[in-house]
Amino acid sequence: GLPGISGMKGEKGDAAFIYRSAFSVGLTGRTPYSNVPIKFTKIFYNEQNHYDETTGKFRCIFPGMYYFGYHLTVYLADVKVSLYKKAKAVLFTYDQFQINNVDQASGSVLLHLEAGEEVWLQVYGEKENNGVYADNINDSTFMGFLLYPDMDPH
Amino acid sequence: GLPGISGMKGEKGDAAFIYRSAFSVGLTGRTPYSNVPIKFTKIFYNEQNHYDETTGKFRCIFPGMYYFGYHLTVYLADVKVSLYKKAKAVLFTYDQFQINNVDQASGSVLLHLEAGEEVWLQVYGEKENNGVYADNINDSTFMGFLLYPDMDPH
Amino acid sequence: GLPGISGMKGEKGDAAFIYRSAFSVGLTGRTPYSNVPIKFTKIFYNEQNHYDETTGKFRCIFPGMYYFGYHLTVYLADVKVSLYKKAKAVLFTYDQFQINNVDQASGSVLLHLEAGEEVWLQVYGEKENNGVYADNINDSTFMGFLLYPDMDPH
Ligand SMILES: [Ca+2]
Ligand SMILES: [Ca+2]
Ligand SMILES: [Ca+2]
Repeated sequence: GLPGISGMKGEKGDAAFIYRSAFSVGLTGRTPYSNVPIKFTKIFYNEQNHYDETTGKFRCIFPGMYYFGYHLTVYLADVKVSLYKKAKAVLFTYDQFQINNVDQASGSVLLHLEAGEEVWLQVYGEKENNGVYADNINDSTFMGFLLYPDMDPH
Repeated sequence: GLPGISGMKGEKGDAAFIYRSAFSVGLTGRTPYSNVPIKFTKIFYNEQNHYDETTGKFRCIFPGMYYFGYHLTVYLADVKVSLYKKAKAVLFTYDQFQINNVDQASGSVLLHLEAGEEVWLQVYGEKENNGVYADNINDSTFMGFLLYPDMDPH
Repeated sequence: GLPGISGMKGEKGDAAFIYRSAFSVGLTGRTPYSNVPIKFTKIFYNEQNHYDETTGKFRCIFPGMYYFGYHLTVYLADVKVSLYKKAKAVLFTYDQFQINNVDQASGSVLLHLEAGEEVWLQVYGEKENNGVYADNINDSTFMGFLLYPDMDPH
């Protein structure tokens, strides 16, 4: 007899952009506690829920290189903050306050993370270093996003 | 008869970088008007022309998650600005000016946009809140870029 | 005869992340020289080694559109810096210092680079404009990353 008909065409290949992880959050109007993770609870973007607003920590699910950044309103006191990766402060920002001179302080960094590693922002020092401020028309914000996921081995 | 020949190989998967949208712009030396979109007309990058320098607005063509950021020189007056998405102010930055103390204020955020939605920067309040400044050796800038395009449904 | 077997699944789509180029660096505690590239030698990320800590310059290997940003601690003197692309200053940041008022100044921009083009940060002006500062708990940082590699022609 005749040969059978051709087999079906194969499936389309996988798309490249399957790894996504990003958050963008802000303070909601009260001075954060010192020496513990700052809890940002105003959510601009947190689709994958890798940022936990109950702890203030971002948790890495997809290993790779991430961008982290923050912008802080400096009001009533100086601002000293650190970006923590695991238990270690890796980036430090200091801005002094003077009366009638509200300021803005910001920082950003690229970090490679393994799955399970956490990143957060924290005031270091005591009350006199905790001028991080926000209200409904003054934001203090924190964000992060996966930029280069680690390569698949296959 | 013999089996038919194999089906054709499937199509190649989607590349990640087929959707591109980014702009990076600066003020060109005059204080912007208050309460209307700031028109940044110094162009660092606007290859896709999704930022319109005649209106000061970025218009989303590819739905997805975007980064937006700005850096403002604070001179002669305080600075109060908002980042608008559609008709709503979503991010607020305030920096006070004092004589002999030029400052820098910045902000950034991640936002999901639908096609057609517009984003821009605007001074809120009146003259006393419009210290946004630029000249040929002092920049005030605005940028945005598509980070994670929405997945194709197919 | 029977139908042939199905074709093979298509190849995975092109990943954007086959082209990778990023660095994130900080000052290590001494005021940089004026009018030459600032040498940042605290390395947060430089996996591809496209940033050269012996010169302070990033060198483009993969043509495309890059993000560059910096955050500077302003202490003891005013800060005037420029971001250079090749021999040309393309972005300018100025922040005045006043006693007891440490400040933070930042800038960022998107630039298209050809292979071989270099980008760096430089203090312009003399000593009185060189308040860029860092110590072990105060960072001044610089970063860049490839966002949209130029399309392959094929
Ligand atoms: Ca100020
Ligand atoms: Ca200042
Ligand atoms: Ca200050």
